[in-house]
Formats: sequence, C-alpha cells, structure tokens
Amino acid sequence: MLQARASACRTRGGARSLDVVTLSHGTLAHRLIDDHLVEGRMEPGHEIGLRIDQTLTQDATGTLVMQELEALGLDRVRTEVSVQYVDHNLLQADERNAEDHAFLRSACRRFGIWYSKPGNGVSHPTHMQYFGVPGRTLAGSDSHTCAAGALGMLALGTGGLEVALAMAGRPLHLTMPEIWGIRLTGHLPEWVSAKDVVLELLRRHGVKGAVNRILEYHGPGLAGLTAMDRHVIANMGAELGATTSVFPSDAAVRDFLRAEDREADFRELAAESDVVHDLTDEIDLSALEPLIARPTSPGNVVPVRAVAGEPIGQAVIGSSANPGLRDFAIAATLVAGRQTHPAVSFDVNPTSREILADLTRMGSTFDLIAAGARIHQAGCLGCIGMGQAPAPGRNSLRTFPRNFPGRSGTEQDAVWLCSPETATVSALTGEITDPREWAAREGVPYPQLRLPGHASVNRAMLEPPLPPEQGARIELERGSNISGLPDFDPMPDVLEGPVLLKCGDNVSTDEISPAGAKALPFRSNIPKLAEFTFTRLDPDYPRRAAELAADGGQGRHFVVGGENYGQGSSREHAAITPRHLGLRAVIAKSYARIHWQNLANFGVLPLEFDDPADYDRIDAGDRLRLENLRPELASGAESRLRLHNTTKDETYLVRHRLSDSRRRTVLAGGTIAALAHEEARHPGAVGNDNLAAPADPGDLSHGAG
Amino acid sequence: MLQARASACRTRGGARSLDVVTLSHGTLAHRLIDDHLVEGRMEPGHEIGLRIDQTLTQDATGTLVMQELEALGLDRVRTEVSVQYVDHNLLQADERNAEDHAFLRSACRRFGIWYSKPGNGVSHPTHMQYFGVPGRTLAGSDSHTCAAGALGMLALGTGGLEVALAMAGRPLHLTMPEIWGIRLTGHLPEWVSAKDVVLELLRRHGVKGAVNRILEYHGPGLAGLTAMDRHVIANMGAELGATTSVFPSDAAVRDFLRAEDREADFRELAAESDVVHDLTDEIDLSALEPLIARPTSPGNVVPVRAVAGEPIGQAVIGSSANPGLRDFAIAATLVAGRQTHPAVSFDVNPTSREILADLTRMGSTFDLIAAGARIHQAGCLGCIGMGQAPAPGRNSLRTFPRNFPGRSGTEQDAVWLCSPETATVSALTGEITDPREWAAREGVPYPQLRLPGHASVNRAMLEPPLPPEQGARIELERGSNISGLPDFDPMPDVLEGPVLLKCGDNVSTDEISPAGAKALPFRSNIPKLAEFTFTRLDPDYPRRAAELAADGGQGRHFVVGGENYGQGSSREHAAITPRHLGLRAVIAKSYARIHWQNLANFGVLPLEFDDPADYDRIDAGDRLRLENLRPELASGAESRLRLHNTTKDETYLVRHRLSDSRRRTVLAGGTIAALAHEEARHPGAVGNDNLAAPADPGDLSHGAG
Repeated sequence: MLQARASACRTRGGARSLDVVTLSHGTLAHRLIDDHLVEGRMEPGHEIGLRIDQTLTQDATGTLVMQELEALGLDRVRTEVSVQYVDHNLLQADERNAEDHAFLRSACRRFGIWYSKPGNGVSHPTHMQYFGVPGRTLAGSDSHTCAAGALGMLALGTGGLEVALAMAGRPLHLTMPEIWGIRLTGHLPEWVSAKDVVLELLRRHGVKGAVNRILEYHGPGLAGLTAMDRHVIANMGAELGATTSVFPSDAAVRDFLRAEDREADFRELAAESDVVHDLTDEIDLSALEPLIARPTSPGNVVPVRAVAGEPIGQAVIGSSANPGLRDFAIAATLVAGRQTHPAVSFDVNPTSREILADLTRMGSTFDLIAAGARIHQAGCLGCIGMGQAPAPGRNSLRTFPRNFPGRSGTEQDAVWLCSPETATVSALTGEITDPREWAAREGVPYPQLRLPGHASVNRAMLEPPLPPEQGARIELERGSNISGLPDFDPMPDVLEGPVLLKCGDNVSTDEISPAGAKALPFRSNIPKLAEFTFTRLDPDYPRRAAELAADGGQGRHFVVGGENYGQGSSREHAAITPRHLGLRAVIAKSYARIHWQNLANFGVLPLEFDDPADYDRIDAGDRLRLENLRPELASGAESRLRLHNTTKDETYLVRHRLSDSRRRTVLAGGTIAALAHEEARHPGAVGNDNLAAPADPGDLSHGAG
Repeated sequence: MLQARASACRTRGGARSLDVVTLSHGTLAHRLIDDHLVEGRMEPGHEIGLRIDQTLTQDATGTLVMQELEALGLDRVRTEVSVQYVDHNLLQADERNAEDHAFLRSACRRFGIWYSKPGNGVSHPTHMQYFGVPGRTLAGSDSHTCAAGALGMLALGTGGLEVALAMAGRPLHLTMPEIWGIRLTGHLPEWVSAKDVVLELLRRHGVKGAVNRILEYHGPGLAGLTAMDRHVIANMGAELGATTSVFPSDAAVRDFLRAEDREADFRELAAESDVVHDLTDEIDLSALEPLIARPTSPGNVVPVRAVAGEPIGQAVIGSSANPGLRDFAIAATLVAGRQTHPAVSFDVNPTSREILADLTRMGSTFDLIAAGARIHQAGCLGCIGMGQAPAPGRNSLRTFPRNFPGRSGTEQDAVWLCSPETATVSALTGEITDPREWAAREGVPYPQLRLPGHASVNRAMLEPPLPPEQGARIELERGSNISGLPDFDPMPDVLEGPVLLKCGDNVSTDEISPAGAKALPFRSNIPKLAEFTFTRLDPDYPRRAAELAADGGQGRHFVVGGENYGQGSSREHAAITPRHLGLRAVIAKSYARIHWQNLANFGVLPLEFDDPADYDRIDAGDRLRLENLRPELASGAESRLRLHNTTKDETYLVRHRLSDSRRRTVLAGGTIAALAHEEARHPGAVGNDNLAAPADPGDLSHGAG
C-alpha cells in the first residue's frame, strides 16, 4: 500500500493516491499537533487551533506586528519565548532603516520580547541556535519559519497578524494538513549535499506539490544528515508550498544542541511505530546528483550537468536556505589557495554572527577573503534583494531558497539556485560547473571537513526582555516612517467593481508587494509602500486603483488569479497594500496558505472558482458584482456565492473556505476591526487572559483546495 | 622669521604672514613639481602643467572618465600605471551597479588599465599598498587622492576629465600653490592618534585653511608616525582645502613598502637643507588630546572631553581617513572580551581586502565580531552614504573624513568625526567618551599593538592590463544605465538669465550633486542624475530649471555662491548635472580648487566677485546679464567682466582666473568640445602622441583667490 502511494506521488504535483483508506496517524506531526491542539479535529481540511509556545518576527514584517500588538492593547506577550530579529533590511541606505531598528527595539522592551540586534544573524539559524526546542510550536512572520522543523518543532510561517495574536496568547488557526511521509534511504554521494535533496523534491513535485501538507522525514537516510542539513531541507519546504516540515529529534539534534551549550533542551521525539501517512514518497540519497533550479522558479530543477558551461557573473553563498557552518566551510575549503574567476563576483552572506565567528576561528574567513570573496554582514541581504543585485541577463548562482523574477533587485535577472558546492566551483571556473566534473578534471578530493564540536556561542547581541514593571514604562520610539495601521471599513452588502488585474499561476507575494531596496524601506509606511503594489506585473496598477478611488466608491475592485496565488514570502503587506488601494476580493483557482490567511485578516475576500474553467471567461476590465454579501457570509450555511459578471452578463459559482470566525473577520473589514467588535460586545475579551480562549469553533468543511 | 610666520599661521584660516620676503624653495614639494614640470613657473598663483605618472579612478567618477577616454578617441593609456577601483557603490540595490562594474572592467581591458574588483578595497589604501611609488605624480578622480602624499608622492585629486586627459598623456594643469611647512615635534600621547593630528589642523585653520596650499610635513615628530598614520593626515588635507599634502619618503615608508613586498620601489626623498616655506606652522604632538569634529563640518573641532556624555546610536570604524591595519586592530583590542552597548550599532568598514585578511589572520576580526560588530565588505560604504545611514538626530561617531549634512544618507544626520580610539570606546559606553577618561576608570592600559611585519599581500583581485593587441579588440559593455556624455553648446555672446539659486559659504559637491544610495546608481546617467541637482539645498531647483528650459533659451541661468564653493568630493557630476540643467555661470566669493576646474571643463564660467560685498546685493530670482562675452573671453586681455543685474539695474565687477587654454575651453562649451575644435584645426592632435604637448602656456596672472 505504502509503495503504491509512493509511486503515485512520484508524479509532478504529488497527486494523492486514490486508494487512501485509513486516516493517517502516529506521525510526529500528529503528536506535535495533538500536544498543542486547543480547537478542531486532526482531520485533513478541518480548521484547527494550536497553542503557540514561541514566536519569531523579523524586521520586514515585525514593524507591523508591533503596531498590531499596540492595536490589540497588549501589555506583554504570553508566549514562552518571542524574538524579534533584524536581518532583512540591513543596508541602511537612508534613515528609515535605523529608525525602524530603534522602533523595534523599543517595542521589544515594551512588550517583553527578545531583541536580536542587526548583525546577529538571520532569524532561522539564529533561532535554531539559541531558542529552538524539540516538541515546541513556533509561529513566525516569515515563510521560512518552517526551517525549525529540523529540530523536531512544529514551526509555522504565517502572516504578521496571526503571529501578533499568538503573542497575545490566542491560538493559531490553520487547516489541518495531510501528512506526507518522505522516507530517506542511502547516503549522499560526494559533491552532493542537503540542498540537492530538497531540489530533488522540487524537481519531482514543483512549487505547489506540498500545499496543505506537512512533509515528515523519516528513514535510515536521516542518520547521515546533521541538524543544519535538515534545516536546509525543512527551510525550502516552503518552496514546495508545504504547511511545514518535521524531522525527528534524534542524536543529530542532540549533537547540535550540545554544540550550542543547550543539551538540557534536548528531548527525543519520533513518530510512533505504527505510523500511517496520508501520502508517501521516498528518496534514495545515494542516487542523487548535483541539481540546480533555473530562472525564475525554484521548481525549474534540472541536473547541473545539463546546463554546465553557461557563463556566470556572480555566485553567492549563504541565506537561510544554506545557513550552516559546513555550507561556508566547504566553500572556503574549495577556494583555499585558488582564485575566483575575474568576471565573477563571489559574495558571502554569513547567516549568523556565531557562524561567522566559527568560520573566522577556523581560518575559513581568511581563505574566502584571499580567494576574492566579498564578505557581507550577517543577514538576509541579497536573498530579498537588499544588495548584490546582479547585472541584467547575467547568470547569478545562489544557494538561496527563491529565484522569483526580480526578487534579486534586478528586473531582468537570471538567478539559479544550487548547493554551495556547485556555486563555489562555478565561481572558480566562471561558468556553471558540475562539481564532480571539476573535481575529476582538477584531481580535487571531496573535502572532509573537521568542524568544531562546540560553537562560538555568544548571546551578547540578544537583548533579553525587560522585567514587566520596567517594560510597562517604555515608550515606543516611533520614527516618521512608521505610518500606523490603516483603518479598513466593513464589507459592503453589495460588492461591485472592475477586475483591475488578471494574473496567471504561481504569482508570488514578491510580485504583489515587492521587497528589495526600493520598496522595503517603506515596510512600515503603508500608503507609500502601496505605490509598489503589483508593479512587477503591471506598473500601472496603482495608478488605475487611484483613479478608481477618485471616481468614488473607495476604489473597490477585484483581482483574478490562477493556481497557487500568493506563494512565497509571508509578508502581510501583500494583503494590506492592495486592500489600501481598494481590493476587496480575489478570485483565484487556488491559494498559497499564508497569503489566503493574510487576505482574510485584512478584510479581502479570498474566493475560489467552483469551476476553474470560469477563470478563462473573465477578462481584465470586466465589472463583477456580489449581491447580498453580508447576509450570505453571516448565515454560514453555504460556502458558495454567485458572482455576476455585469460586463458579459454571466454568473459563476465561487467558493470561500472561511470558518465562522474568519467570516466575521472579513465582514468586519479585518481581524483588528473584528476584535474591536468583540471587545465592544464582551469588554475585556481583548488584551487580557480571555484572549487565549477559542475564538470560534470551526464548523465548515474545507476542501483541500 | 620662520617662527614669526608660524605664529601668524596659528590664527584660524591660516592667514599668510605679512613679512614674506623670500620665495619659498627647497621643499620636497618643489622637487616633485620640478621633476614633472612641463609648463609654467613654480610661483604661487601661476598655472603649471605637470607630467602625470600614475592615475586612479573610482567607480563613482570612473564611468564618466571611461566615456571621456572614448570621446577623446584614446587607444591606450600613456601613464606608467592607471588603476580603476570599484569601491564607492558596492550595495548593488539594483542592476545598475553590477552593470557599471561590467562596463568599467571592459573599459579597463580596452584601454590598458588595471581593474581592482569590488571587494578589493578603497582606492587610496589599496593604491598605496600595491602601486604607490615615492617621487611619482598621481592624479585621481577622487578628492582624497592626496592621501598618497604619505609615500612622498605628489598626489592630486581632480575632476574626472583632468584625469582622462592625464591618462591620454596630457599634462595636468593647476595653480602653483603655496607651500606650507608643518613642523611636527614630540610624540603622540597614549589614546591620541594620527586622526587627532589632522583634526588639530582643522581646529586651527578650518575647512578653507589650506586652499591653494600644499601641506608639507617635516620635523622630528615624523619619526613616530608610520606610513599609514601619515596617510590619515594626508587624506584629510582635503578637508582643509589643500591642493595636496607631502611627507618625506624615509624609513617609515621603507618599512611600509617592505611589508608589501615592494622594497625595490623605495627611494629616499626629503626637502633640501636650506628649505624655505611660504607659510609655517608647528604641532607639538605631545600636547595633543583626543579631538572630535561636531556635526556638520570637519572644521567644527572640539576636544572630546568637551562633549563627553552625549548618547550615541552608532560608531563606525574605517574609510580612507582611518584605513590602516592599526586603526582596526586597536578597535579590536579595545573591544576584545567586551560588548558594545545595546543601543549602538558598531559598524566596521574594512578598507582593503589585504587589511581584512591581516585582521583575520591576527584574530582581530573574531574579537570584533564577538563584541557585536557588523563587518562590511571592503569599500567606502557609509562614508559616501552607501549604507549604514544613522537614525535622524542620533549621534553617529565615525572615523570618516567628512560629515557634511546628509552625506551619510540621512537628511537630519548628526555625524561626528574622530579617531578609532574615541569611536570604539564610545561604542562600548553608548555615549561620547574621552578614551583617556574611560581607560582611567576601567583601569585599561593603552594597547601595545604587535602588527605583522609582512602584510597579506595578494594581487589576485587586481586584473592587469591586457596586451595592446588584445585590448584593441575589446568591446565596451555598455549597460542601459550608461547614458553617454551630453553634448554642450558653446558659450553665447550674451549670457542672460535668472539667479536660480543663491547659496552660502562652504557649499559642498555633496550638496550640489548628492552621492548616497538614491543618486549614486545614476552616476553614469546624466539626465537622471540631474534630477538630484542641488536638491539638498533646494528640492525645487531641478523643477525651476526645467520650467526655464521649457520657456526657451535652453534654461540658461546663474548660481550665486559664497566662500569655498564646491568643497569636498571631486565628482565632476557637480559641474555636469547643473550644466545639463542650463547653468552657464557661477558667481562666488571663492572656489574649491577641483570644482573650479570641473566647472570650466564643462563650460560653466566660474566667476568671483571683485568686491565680495556685492554678494549681498544679488538676490535669488534677479536676472543677470553678461555682454560681449565671447570677445571679452577670447581677447585674454582682462580677467574682469561687468555683470549687469537687470532686475536691480546695478553692475558688479567680477573676475575669472582662466588661463588662455581654459578660456578656450569655456568658449567652446567644455574641454571635449575644445579638443574637438583642436582636432579639426590640427588633425591628429587628439588621440595620438601630440596629446602630450602643452595645450597652451599660461599667460595670465592668477590671484590666490
């Protein structure tokens, strides 16, 4: 049976095998969920609510989260640990950045949050080093939060407002995913590393392959993967659309925590012996070869040998997708005594201060510098277009997780995703090179790294929360670029307006609300950031929205999307900025999980075509109309709505998958407005202990979408 | 006599003593000039032409220089050594940057120029490490080129076009400066270093104190200053307005060159025994204390103790003003085992790959990282507003050379200039701190550094010139952001137009054409960069200029300036972009040397008030008129012109200080147009060996201005 499912899953898209007869059970994911379940049933498609032990926020999303905590009237976070990292926007090309850092620090002091200073590192590896604990839940306002699954955590990337609610002690709501068992066998060959494992999954299943699924890794192949190797794989589960990834907490995790002086936090965790997964797949590690994702999707995976010889202009090592000491050390070992190609910029983005310190202690930093590397401060940097943008059309090889068009900061970019081995060897040769081929030609053995057994542990750049009585006296340091959260009005009875944009499949949040050096400084300034909305797809969208708003009717409009609408980054700006411009409903074939939540949280109705063929019947510019919207949403009896195309005089059936509480949210104009209503009806419900009470039992059935 | 002069010079402004009877002679500056003199007489105020042995360009100015070489029809540079550095704009927030780097590399290959890759380092220390030779002349399109005076070179920062002409084998023209002997005695006390020496000169003489002067250092105090210490002092001679600074080539220089594997390049050089300076001053090093320049001028110098206790948000180590290994090593030693203050961002800008490698080898990089430093790639970065912009109003202590308003990238910045000792100790305490006071309180002895006797010499990021036959086949890789040089029309007979801007004293080229992360990416795109012209002083200037141009008359207009107009960076964009917007003449009380040349080179008439009191009679918006301009300039008989204010019906006398050749340049609309005329009259004169012939003997007398 398992094998039959496995073979069914080898098709692109990871189609569900048709012979599922038993509900999955006994997985580690089930155990982690069950340990934290405060609402709902553990059946795929049902909404569940989970108690959240830890949260992380980063600066690109965190400035909004802190304003949301303010709007919620929160006095102090109720989680075990909440950490604010500053890793995304470190360039400080103008004053906005340093202002945001000061605001974040003051908010941490105010609300009882750890503050990780700029330069301390990227949230994901740093959290793993200093805070991650097997068996705990983690919610993070960053889509790669799932990386902490490497430690046996249930780690969920989500919108900032969801994280703010979790910090306030409320449960995190999500659709119970299917559990997809990925059995690993064999050992990685020389010149093949963890990145190639997740690239293999992307090669097989593409960027939608794991939507509404948890990837749970098991099998004898795990023994050869360190905790940081597993981080690489868990991190890029986000690129498959997975809800998260889960690894057991075993000897590799114990080794990692011991090296971080935290062996006391270790707890062994594994699936039960009679485990049944909803779907299965298997990877023989021994059979893998170096892989690479071509521009401009992480799903465009091919063997490196198939594209060898393409000239490159840049190679970049680092990011949360290859954050470990070994990822840098192997690069340093390969370049030691050699020189990178004159036409190649070889950029090194250390991912945490600890790793840079270790590298430096080992002598690897020296080797990298000597070989021509540009060493950057510890942070995300080029991964989200904050620096090292490549020249247009010149190939840039990166160990990063994403290569969506323009995400590098260059409009006509050509970014490829690969392992450190492939990126480094290609930096030496000046062209895309299969490291096995280079090694054979040059007679270079695969490096046997000797990494220190004890890390350069250093918590001095982590400022601990203030005691509550001190925190209560802290004033937020609000710079001129912190605009405050906009007020959004309730959903009208009749929603009518034009389709202002129609887009294709796999539109990413990078395309909806770009990051990068131009836009990211305005992450805390919604009116200004809104000017960038959808401009990667259609530079004219903000102007059309403004004209529509000038004509009255608040600029209400629709956007039509294809499959996997809103994939990628968790940034809620991708919901807030179009909402600010008048977007009130999206109709798509399917959604990426986090963006779907973000839309609802900010009062945008996320609808799906009942018949996907209707997508083709709607054109940009058509006027759409939804009647009796408030009573239909309020009644809760039916998830289907009739969408009238007044331009073509046609009607389509569309569905929502909103639970009762999310329906109330959308009706109120968004979560903050809904909570204000709740507070008005039940004073004290928001901002005190009652916050932790279940908001509403989910009572609708939700398709896997 | 010398002493009398010295005391006269102790007044602010470095006023000339009144009892000069002997022409200065016997200085090392005289010897260096005499060795390279191809035109003119070595008398202060006379124009001289010098043979240039070496040139340096950096990326912010180099993309124009390369286009100028193209416009000159040059086949291959004629200097001994020309080097293109990439150090200014390394953030790569979008594609323009990487495009520019590719363009620069292709131009180097085309024209026979060394290419220093991004990450190899800031031009000045890197040039000193790998190319500087005592006794040689160096022209650089960067105002801090003068730093090479530390090696006994005659090193002149100048506009890009002057450098392009030098690369083409033409002499560099300048006004023969006065030679100001600075006698150093004593030894620097503990906690006081080279930066405090040049800050002391700025305290005494201000930012115009050395205009049209060469600072020549001598005396027993030199024995305690390494070549890199001297670099610190020579570099910031630019902040005093000096033409350049000269140090003897002695044992300290030999030690430096030996450490760089270049002892063979050493040559002892000193002044003659019967030296006479035009002016003199003396500094007893033993009497110095830690100094700091307050915002927003390098001339606002006070003792650190006078401002101790001010809270800070940032401290930055590095830049060409404190580039040496000891400057970073002392910071590392002071922070080792300590932690920088939680509210302080401690940024480290390594200045060259070699120094970062040495620091790493010594273990200092580890100490800096452990103390919370953000380590940046080797380059100029924050010094020209390319990153690490501070929060508005929060004090930022920097070891940089300049703190002009907004140069950091933050409009309302508060940047202070100080030594590495002061910046580092303040980063630990979180407030401006006199390091002596901290050391006494903490019981910390002044570090006795043990620096390696041999540097991590590594030329691998310096790509050598191609052989001529290969270079001739190279095509320039011109990205979409390389706009080409604009064509400028000749000076009209009657120049009439409004005063579009009236500004005060000490306007810097940073205020005329800002650098920073917004503007610098457009350094190769004149029409786009022009939109930033003067916007730091008046955001409306570009719009007014465009409106004027739309009214016809090509937007011709005037700008009125005060003293020391155009101080600071050598960027010729500060002449080209206002010229592009229609600026045809500036009337100022006095000019900074490089900007004055740049204005003439691009066909803008640089005029001075005969009576500085007339400055007060002209208001912004007044219409000015110069009649018979072409015949008056062409005749050469008179440097005075009658400027009519048609709004007020007044006439003022104004002077120019243009030599015959510069008059022809201004008449033609700029140097490139003038050379095209010359080529038309004497085919072959441009772009072949005749280029090295004197353009024109200077025959006007030039006041010291």
